[in-house]
Amino acid sequence: MEWTPEGLRLLDQRALPEQETWLLLRHPQEVIQAIQTMAVRGAPAIGMAGAFGLVLAAQVEPDRVGYWIDSIAKARPTAVNLKQAVDRLAALPSADSEVLLREAHAIMEEDLRMNHAMGAHGASLVPSQARILTICNTGAIATAGHGTALGVIRSAFARDNRIHVFACETRPRLQGSRLTAWELAQEGIPFQVVVDSAAAPLMAAGKVDLVVIGADRICQNGDTANKIGSLMLGICAHRYGVPFYVVAPSTTIDPETPDGSLIEIEQRDEDEVLAWGGQRLAAPGAQALNPAFDVVPSDLITAIITESGVHRSPFHFSAETAGAQA
Amino acid sequence: MEWTPEGLRLLDQRALPEQETWLLLRHPQEVIQAIQTMAVRGAPAIGMAGAFGLVLAAQVEPDRVGYWIDSIAKARPTAVNLKQAVDRLAALPSADSEVLLREAHAIMEEDLRMNHAMGAHGASLVPSQARILTICNTGAIATAGHGTALGVIRSAFARDNRIHVFACETRPRLQGSRLTAWELAQEGIPFQVVVDSAAAPLMAAGKVDLVVIGADRICQNGDTANKIGSLMLGICAHRYGVPFYVVAPSTTIDPETPDGSLIEIEQRDEDEVLAWGGQRLAAPGAQALNPAFDVVPSDLITAIITESGVHRSPFHFSAETAGAQA
Repeated sequence: MEWTPEGLRLLDQRALPEQETWLLLRHPQEVIQAIQTMAVRGAPAIGMAGAFGLVLAAQVEPDRVGYWIDSIAKARPTAVNLKQAVDRLAALPSADSEVLLREAHAIMEEDLRMNHAMGAHGASLVPSQARILTICNTGAIATAGHGTALGVIRSAFARDNRIHVFACETRPRLQGSRLTAWELAQEGIPFQVVVDSAAAPLMAAGKVDLVVIGADRICQNGDTANKIGSLMLGICAHRYGVPFYVVAPSTTIDPETPDGSLIEIEQRDEDEVLAWGGQRLAAPGAQALNPAFDVVPSDLITAIITESGVHRSPFHFSAETAGAQA
Repeated sequence: MEWTPEGLRLLDQRALPEQETWLLLRHPQEVIQAIQTMAVRGAPAIGMAGAFGLVLAAQVEPDRVGYWIDSIAKARPTAVNLKQAVDRLAALPSADSEVLLREAHAIMEEDLRMNHAMGAHGASLVPSQARILTICNTGAIATAGHGTALGVIRSAFARDNRIHVFACETRPRLQGSRLTAWELAQEGIPFQVVVDSAAAPLMAAGKVDLVVIGADRICQNGDTANKIGSLMLGICAHRYGVPFYVVAPSTTIDPETPDGSLIEIEQRDEDEVLAWGGQRLAAPGAQALNPAFDVVPSDLITAIITESGVHRSPFHFSAETAGAQA
């Protein structure tokens, strides 16, 4: 993601790994569409895209910035970073596009700094020659760079090149086998893709030393909404005594939501499950239920790693812990 | 699956649900290939196919029946039905093709009878308006007819048409969204496809009343090898107190294997995970680990339903319980 005088340049994550296509967005509605269609995805990345979207709004429709604040914040419901970023720009004394742009850049720079800090905190928890299991994509393309859970893996690999990663493919959109695999291959980090449900027998066989996941929203009590599959991983890790870490910047913490039962889970189009690339996979007549996220209750989480350090259970996040950099 | 004077006619399950293609197999090597490429799949169905394969061997290479007994039994390693069926034919006093054919037909007829008996036993455990979650395909095409776990669903639906089924899509080969969905749609049984990892949040939300799965091998102590994903379902069902039933004929019980640690888990080609229909899905350079099955330990199983009734923990299967009809 890159701001240019022409508008917001965005790497289209739907085209990866086959193609590196850059979109040029000039209107806030294009940003909303990019968020909703997942051209840009990953909680921190959609927060940044939302901020730049508001800059575009201030440029092209300065009289309707209030409308765009609301529309952009609602583009996707589950990740709190989007609302946090938009609120942060909205709270500025001026809605001048140059003022908003400076703040959007600040959010991006802070995210990158936070990711490196989380990487260092997390890497200190990774044992020698660790076999690390993760889900979805939480890497450079989901953030300002380096990544959250994948940032921990990157930092751990910098210390110990004998680690091994199991990347859950992450149905239905395959962010694991497509995006995480693409990033891991570029870095030369050894890994294997597995179907999501293979995590359980790997853990049962003692082949997983730790699980690291990102987050889309962390509640006051530590309950964590993340990509569908995260709950299943948490339950299995708990059964087999495998440490289970959530890695997210404080901008992903939502202290106003007491627990996970109050998080709105986005339901996405059933064709994400029933088809691939326009080609039907499922039987004719089949319908699907397609929740994009699930909630890992805090009792399954060993620690939550933010830029400020390693937080262990019992969790209690306050407005001070959340968005500390804001 | 149908025996004809020309050879074994087999519905090619790889072509479903798009096409109903029937293969005509005239040589035991073709049967082995059909089993290995999963043109025929499902533990009872590959047992029957193996039996008919031996009939073909007796017809075309009567001097090498011993070689074919061995080769067919080893075509796939995990499901015990294949070995059981081949052993049953091999134990006959004559290797005459007509004698073998009668026995193969007997296996098929017994399987159908057993499925209806299991359906009735299982349906008695299904509450009114039940929401039933299942994985893989355990239906008519995986057996001689009616099905094992899907047979229980069929029998339950015959009693109460308000049941609802959640069909896990079953990565990597999507037997759930392709084959089970195809059978459920034909029967008019209400259902939704979900990605495998969505089972956990459905159970967490109290939306699943019971889980029914089939089996590829049941050990003396009740440990059950089944499609990858079964272990994850068992662990999640245990956490949320959801009854977890294994449905399989006694021919799937292997009393000679004391527990699940001794079951050989078939590792299949990584392209099943990384590609679909010849089209690469995963990032270039990605490799995959692709175990086809996992093992549900008996402590996670509420009951095992065979044709003889509902067996509850602690399980101890003997040669008498196993293959009772043999």
